[in-house]
Amino acid sequence: MTVRAAIRTKTVEYKQGDTTLEGFVAYDDAIPVKRPGILVVHQWMGLTDYEKHRAEMLAQLGYVAFCADIYGKGVRPQNPREAGAQAGKYKSDRQLLRARVTAGLDALRQQPSVDSKRIAAIGYCFGGTTVLELARSGADIAGVVSFHGGLDAPDPNDGKNIKCKVLICHGADDPFSSPQDIAALEDEMRKGGVDWQLIKYGGAVHSFTQPMAGNDNSKGAAYNEKADKRSWAAMKEFFAEIFR
Amino acid sequence: MTVRAAIRTKTVEYKQGDTTLEGFVAYDDAIPVKRPGILVVHQWMGLTDYEKHRAEMLAQLGYVAFCADIYGKGVRPQNPREAGAQAGKYKSDRQLLRARVTAGLDALRQQPSVDSKRIAAIGYCFGGTTVLELARSGADIAGVVSFHGGLDAPDPNDGKNIKCKVLICHGADDPFSSPQDIAALEDEMRKGGVDWQLIKYGGAVHSFTQPMAGNDNSKGAAYNEKADKRSWAAMKEFFAEIFR
Repeated sequence: MTVRAAIRTKTVEYKQGDTTLEGFVAYDDAIPVKRPGILVVHQWMGLTDYEKHRAEMLAQLGYVAFCADIYGKGVRPQNPREAGAQAGKYKSDRQLLRARVTAGLDALRQQPSVDSKRIAAIGYCFGGTTVLELARSGADIAGVVSFHGGLDAPDPNDGKNIKCKVLICHGADDPFSSPQDIAALEDEMRKGGVDWQLIKYGGAVHSFTQPMAGNDNSKGAAYNEKADKRSWAAMKEFFAEIFR
Repeated sequence: MTVRAAIRTKTVEYKQGDTTLEGFVAYDDAIPVKRPGILVVHQWMGLTDYEKHRAEMLAQLGYVAFCADIYGKGVRPQNPREAGAQAGKYKSDRQLLRARVTAGLDALRQQPSVDSKRIAAIGYCFGGTTVLELARSGADIAGVVSFHGGLDAPDPNDGKNIKCKVLICHGADDPFSSPQDIAALEDEMRKGGVDWQLIKYGGAVHSFTQPMAGNDNSKGAAYNEKADKRSWAAMKEFFAEIFR
């Protein structure tokens, strides 16, 4: 048996309006055909090694993975205060957030090995919120997956714009989304006629896929290996369905 | 390639106290080793061809599947009124329900090809409620899966008795479990320190795995092919984890 995997990675500059963004692409160079592309949207700390590693994991599954940069080239928060300021800026300007994530989507589609008709987006924390916003923009993609994204429904009518399938992977003890927020999001999806699924992982809080988050649930954000593995498996199953 | 599958099925009489029950077993006779056993608990109409078909599907996956009979040999409701009376009898006597489902579990364990240390239980509608009750009894099994089970928490302290993993597959529009009931069940699991997961399928109502339920969501019970396939895939992934 020959080991075929030859994962290539590189930094990719692209633009949204006049703003330069710096993304990252990962793919298996040994695959000779075009294949589905997955957009990966970062957490509130901006594009870090964490998202790049996820992109490499996706490349190993046979996808072309492209990490979007929402904040802009060189804008890499160094601490939670800076991260909160950046994330807050985009969460309070959903149109700008949509423009930024759509620029990433366009950059993904332009990657030579991508089958531009088979596209999905995943996101972690802030990135989970962002891929839901991408769906609400009416993006013509197959699906989005949110991992411990902030869940709310800024405009309950937005759901009716959603064309793609939605999978939400959520920590059942995540303190950053209230039951009311989750109920509002469910209602948005319901009223919009969206094909949506929500998985709640018992015992998991915010950031459950992030090993750097430690293991103290009382802090509200912590790694949870079971929920990490289960949500990754759920994503793989979701991709198997939407790219069938 | 040789087709190995040789699915065998048979009716199995067993007892709970003085009551004779009539179950059904399915397994692949071509598998030469002991393998995990799955208890299948029926809907409110009692043990029907629906559950037997699910058992055959499980046998095709390589499991020994045993359909429990909760109501008793010959007790097969012919209409919703009779079904409601039977289901109501056991829902209002959880100790009897536990005794009946445990008898099925024992009968499953006695099947010659079952690895009695690797056991799970699944249930549909009334059977979903029943397998949660089996978990609450402290059953020493690996996991339970409820498909559109009635969800409530008759005794919120029961969760602490649960030793096995719990997967709940639920229609997001199921009118037979109120948001309050679901929240109470989540709290029971949370307080009990249970390893639990809840999947909500958007657009699905009660009976979403049951083709006989038709396709009119406004009736509160209807088949939903997507949710059926997705929940079956989630169950397979759950088994892959617990029987690893």
